Parts: sequence; C-alpha cells; structure tokens
Amino acid sequence: MPDPIITLTTDFGEDSPYVAAMKGVILGLNPDARIVDLSHLIPAQDVVHAAFFLAEAIPYFPTGPIHVVVVDPGVGTPRHLLYGEIDGHRLAVPDNGVWTLLARGRSLNRVHQLTETRWWRKPVSATFHGRDILAPAAAQLSLGLDPEALGPKIDDWIKLPLALPAEHAEAVQGEVLFIDHFGNLITNIPGAALPPDGPRGVSVGGIRIQEWVRTYGDAPPGTLVALLSSSGLLEIAIVQGNAAQRFGLQRGAAVQVY
Amino acid sequence: MPDPIITLTTDFGEDSPYVAAMKGVILGLNPDARIVDLSHLIPAQDVVHAAFFLAEAIPYFPTGPIHVVVVDPGVGTPRHLLYGEIDGHRLAVPDNGVWTLLARGRSLNRVHQLTETRWWRKPVSATFHGRDILAPAAAQLSLGLDPEALGPKIDDWIKLPLALPAEHAEAVQGEVLFIDHFGNLITNIPGAALPPDGPRGVSVGGIRIQEWVRTYGDAPPGTLVALLSSSGLLEIAIVQGNAAQRFGLQRGAAVQVY
Amino acid sequence: MPDPIITLTTDFGEDSPYVAAMKGVILGLNPDARIVDLSHLIPAQDVVHAAFFLAEAIPYFPTGPIHVVVVDPGVGTPRHLLYGEIDGHRLAVPDNGVWTLLARGRSLNRVHQLTETRWWRKPVSATFHGRDILAPAAAQLSLGLDPEALGPKIDDWIKLPLALPAEHAEAVQGEVLFIDHFGNLITNIPGAALPPDGPRGVSVGGIRIQEWVRTYGDAPPGTLVALLSSSGLLEIAIVQGNAAQRFGLQRGAAVQVY
Repeated sequence: MPDPIITLTTDFGEDSPYVAAMKGVILGLNPDARIVDLSHLIPAQDVVHAAFFLAEAIPYFPTGPIHVVVVDPGVGTPRHLLYGEIDGHRLAVPDNGVWTLLARGRSLNRVHQLTETRWWRKPVSATFHGRDILAPAAAQLSLGLDPEALGPKIDDWIKLPLALPAEHAEAVQGEVLFIDHFGNLITNIPGAALPPDGPRGVSVGGIRIQEWVRTYGDAPPGTLVALLSSSGLLEIAIVQGNAAQRFGLQRGAAVQVY
Repeated sequence: MPDPIITLTTDFGEDSPYVAAMKGVILGLNPDARIVDLSHLIPAQDVVHAAFFLAEAIPYFPTGPIHVVVVDPGVGTPRHLLYGEIDGHRLAVPDNGVWTLLARGRSLNRVHQLTETRWWRKPVSATFHGRDILAPAAAQLSLGLDPEALGPKIDDWIKLPLALPAEHAEAVQGEVLFIDHFGNLITNIPGAALPPDGPRGVSVGGIRIQEWVRTYGDAPPGTLVALLSSSGLLEIAIVQGNAAQRFGLQRGAAVQVY
Repeated sequence: MPDPIITLTTDFGEDSPYVAAMKGVILGLNPDARIVDLSHLIPAQDVVHAAFFLAEAIPYFPTGPIHVVVVDPGVGTPRHLLYGEIDGHRLAVPDNGVWTLLARGRSLNRVHQLTETRWWRKPVSATFHGRDILAPAAAQLSLGLDPEALGPKIDDWIKLPLALPAEHAEAVQGEVLFIDHFGNLITNIPGAALPPDGPRGVSVGGIRIQEWVRTYGDAPPGTLVALLSSSGLLEIAIVQGNAAQRFGLQRGAAVQVY
C-alpha cells in the first residue's frame, strides 16, 4: 500500500551533507514523499542507542510509514540490508541488530534482503548505502512497491545480545540501557518487576537512590529520584539536573532493586 | 477550522526518542498532518529561553497552525496544560508562563485547560504529557476539533516575572534576555527606548561597547558592537565572534544605555 | 513552474528562533509549501563549509525545489542576494561564493539579484535578510513566480578561492576540504587523480596512512585508513573513530598522495 511518509533515523549529524543527500534521492523518486526526521544525532555507530531509540519511538506511529535507519558501522562489508515489518511497522535497516529491542515481544516478519540491484542508485558507493540503497528502496515502497520485489525473503538476522534483568529472591539486577538528553538513566528493568508501591531501595553504580516518586516535580530540584519512565521502565533521574553527568555513569552501569 | 500544520518546540534534544514518539502520535491521529520542527534544542527545562523563542518565532506564522510547546519541568504535578490563542496564533503549552513574552502587547484569549480525558492517549504517563496529552490535542485541533471540547475555559494562567527595562533621566537600565546561537546578547531594551541616532554609550556586565552599528558587517571582525536586533531590541555582538563566550556573560547580565 | 518544496540550509542552530521565523514567513505566503530542513548546524559564518555541503547535497535532488541558503556574514552590507540555477537546481543565496563548489563543472545561469522590493517583508531588518528577503522570495518562487521578477539578471558573482589539487610527476598535493560529523577528512583530491588500485601512500598533516581500503569495515576499528568518499574524493578516516580529533587536524591540512 502506498504511504507518502518516510521517516529518517541516522547518526549523520546535521553539519554533514549526508542526510540532505538522502532527502534528495527520496524526493527525486517520489516528489510527494513527506519526510519526517526522527533523529540525526544518534551517537556515531552506536547501534545499541539506536535500538533503544527505535523501540521507544516506532510503536507510537501508525503502520503506514517507511522507517529508514542508517546507523551502519558495517557499511560496504558483506553485512546485509533488510526490509521487515514489526507488528506492521515497516523498517529498512542494516542487518546489525538495530531492531532487536523493537522486535522483542512483537512479531517481525516479511523480512527481505535488499539485493535486487534494479532499485539501487548507481554507482553504489561502498560507504553510503543509506543514500544508494536504503533511500531508493524506501521511496519505491512509499510509491507502492511490493517488498517481495526488493530481494529474497529470509528468516535469520542479527540480534543484539542485550541483557534482560535477573530476578532473585531478594533483589532484581539490571543495568542502565539508555541515557537520555536530560541525563536521565533508563534501565532495562520493567515496572512489572517492581513492587506495586515502588521498591524499598534502588542503587545504580553503587549510589543509593533517596526517593521513589511518580514524577520529577514530586521532589525538589537536585533530588536523586527513581521513578517509572514514560515507557514503563525503571528510571533514575536528578530533578531538573543531569544524573549521568553528576555521577559519571554510562550505559551498562549496574542497577539493583531491593 | 482544520489546518494540517502542527509545529513542535521542545527541550527534548534529538538523541532521545521523545520527539519521534510525539510525531508518531500525531500522525496516528491525523495522517495528513504536516509537522514542522521549530526547535528541539531549547535548553533543558529553560522556560525563559522558550518564552523568548516563541515571542520571536510565532508572530511570523500565519494563524492556522497549532504550535505545541513542551518545555515542562512541572510535568505530572498539578500544573495545568493549556490551549490558547494569541492574536489568533494557536498554542498548546504547559501552564508555566512560556507564552508570557508572546502574549505581551497581544490579546490572549480562548484559553482552555486540557482536562477532557477523552482526547488523551491512555495510559497517561506521569512524565510525558507532551506525547500523551498535548500531541493528541494538537492532532484533534488540526482535524477541526473545537477548542471548547478540550476542557473548561479559564482566564488566569502563570506569567513569568520577566523584567522590563527602567528608564531614568540619564540612562536606560535593562538586562540580557536571550543569548542566541552565535553568542549575540539580545537585551530587553526596545529600539524605541534609544535615541534615533543610537545611544552615546552601552555597557553590559561592566564592559563598554565601542561601536554602534546598523549591521554586523559595518565593523571589522572581532569588534564589539551594539545594534538593533532583527526584532528591534538592543543587541550586543562581536562581529563574526561569540560575545557571550568571550566575556563569560549570561542571561540576566545588567545592561546600561546612556 | 510551481513546486511546493523549499529546503533550508543555515548556520542558525536550533536553539535560536531564526529558523522558525523563516518557516513562518514561508508558510504565511505559501501555506502549501513543504519545508525540508537540510541543515541548521553549518558552523557559524563558515561559507566554505556550506559550499562543500551544498556541492555534496543539492545534486541528489530533483530540479523543482527552491534551496534557500543563509550563511551570511555580510548581512546588511552592500553584498547582494542572488537567485540562480545550477544544472537546473534552483538556489537563493547571499552573494558570498557559497555556491562555488556546486557550480564547478556545472552550468550556472539565470542569475538574478533580489533587488525588487515588492517581494520583501517590510520593514527589512539589517541583520536578517534570510527572513525578510530570501524566505519571501523562495515562497513566491514556490508559487510560480518567474525569477525575472526578482531583480536584474547579472553575470558576475563572488567565487570562493578554493584550491584545486596539484599533480606532479611523483605525487598529488591537495588539502583537507571538509571534516564531516564523524571526523572523517574529505580532501579535494578526486578519485580520478589516483591510481586505479589506490595510491602507494597517503599522508595528511605529516601523518602516514597505513591502509587503503574500499570501505571502513575492511579494517579493524581504530585503523587509520584512506579510501574513496561517497562522492568520489580521497578521504582519510579512522575506522569507528574520529580522525580529525585524534590528530587535531583542521580544514586546509596538507595532503600528499604518492
């Protein structure tokens, strides 16, 4: 089914001309395409960051748009490029596991390799498949191309080895999965793993959290708090501050809930 | 009246998935919405920065679009969310004074609280009303919903206590109101408060400005100059340089005009 | 011919209201305009950066859109504003050489000065011609205005003195022309100046490059490599790293190919 919306998620930044080149290629093939920027500030080559980003963003969309993702450290090597549908959401991505978190608990199917060269821009650069393969594929899909035409259907693809929290009798062990723009630490521990009234205690990287709150404004500015994130995960934040910077914490920091 | 344009102004950054989630919610309700990004780099929780931003941007728009603003340190607390029309410009904002400067000297009316839960996304997160209340409201308005349906009309809302300049016999006292991307210092002193040929002297944070110019290029690179900003306010700049960085000046720095 | 797409390339950043004001002006004149952001993070006043950006982005577009460029250190001085067509691509720019690289090897014609004040926003600010002259011109062009109506046709304009590489018997001498978001160094040396199997050796700023590769992933992370950029220029990169930061290299650094 044709849908004019194509979204872009990249690590290209805005100072470089790469995003603009992709937009040009898309509009050259489908002048009626409506391009929606999701992000161009995924940290460089950070597939895990992009995986969390997609898992938190794509489910809010209707199922028509084509979501193009270019965080692609393996560009030009034999890694594949893929089209797939996750609960109906249509993505075109490098086969590096970037859709792992989005696909968790959802059905991923109609996965095709983008091997059919007739849809490619020529000559294909060895370092910019976003422009030369993914963008044209998305434009063609937005015009109604059947994904079958993109290349062979496959049923194996890369999965990122992203840890799930471990539940013990006394505690849940997890880790920081994502640090957002505010320096809030989003963990891999779902709300369902917590007691209904909130945990007795939470620690991250050895630091004890003082307060369990419903929202940031429930404690004075500067307070270190734990709460449920907007997507239902355990989150650690400093009210109107930057928890990641203040404690020098990074993705992967150990989190414990008592 | 339906208008497909919805603008977004947030402090979410582009590395986080929050802007993308709002775009998804909007397009899910109104697939024909045309989303226009105004900024996602308002400094975190900086309502004053956002207030200046809106005052300098919204008046240039036609009156059809819905402008959604999410700079919302009070999210989830009892602060309200509002719809209002300022000289016909339609905004959906947290009730934290963010439209104070835009409303100055203009008529703000048809203010409604967004309390009607039938328009909300459910469940409503305690930390992301942009996605769950403001975005759906904007999408419904863009489809033609009467603002009356959003919630009760009110006639009181938060105003930011933003200083006006003081005029004395010998001098005008004001302050830096905004620091732009170039490090130019925009003050709260309107051109009308200055002598027609420019002031005899200007100082900011104790530093004397050497030259009054019509535009940056009227003095050599590196010169500290005073001039009228593109919106008619007294501005202090370094030609092809960054005045805020060079002098370590911040918003609120005292400005004097002789 | 009317075309609803208007692209924007500026050095305004997203924290300032200047981009938003331009979008408002455009939509006020042409509510059906489809605005496409190319970049708002061109480094401040960096006309050379913008020149490379345009040369690498605009050719991928179809020829309908109007491309507005506001990197304009000379705003308000007697420098001109121009409309021109480069191989059919339609641009509205300050006359500061920003289209020099895009025009190289292409035909630039129908160049007009934007002197016809009836299309300007009034009053015209001395510091923001992007909002008051370029944006309205682009909106009018997108509605079908004949470029002839913008002002007199001219056939001289500013060219940036951008160096071409020098080919000697033993070596090619060039320089770094652009540093991208990843810290990759794009040089002014075209692939055609290199031996078909890659050069015997490359140095940049005195540093010898260890490996010639087809794409980043052909060498282990951290390796310093030379390769062909996605636009066919000699590029120097660190695999999954930032070459510009690691070696403290800037635009203009000398490059030698043996």
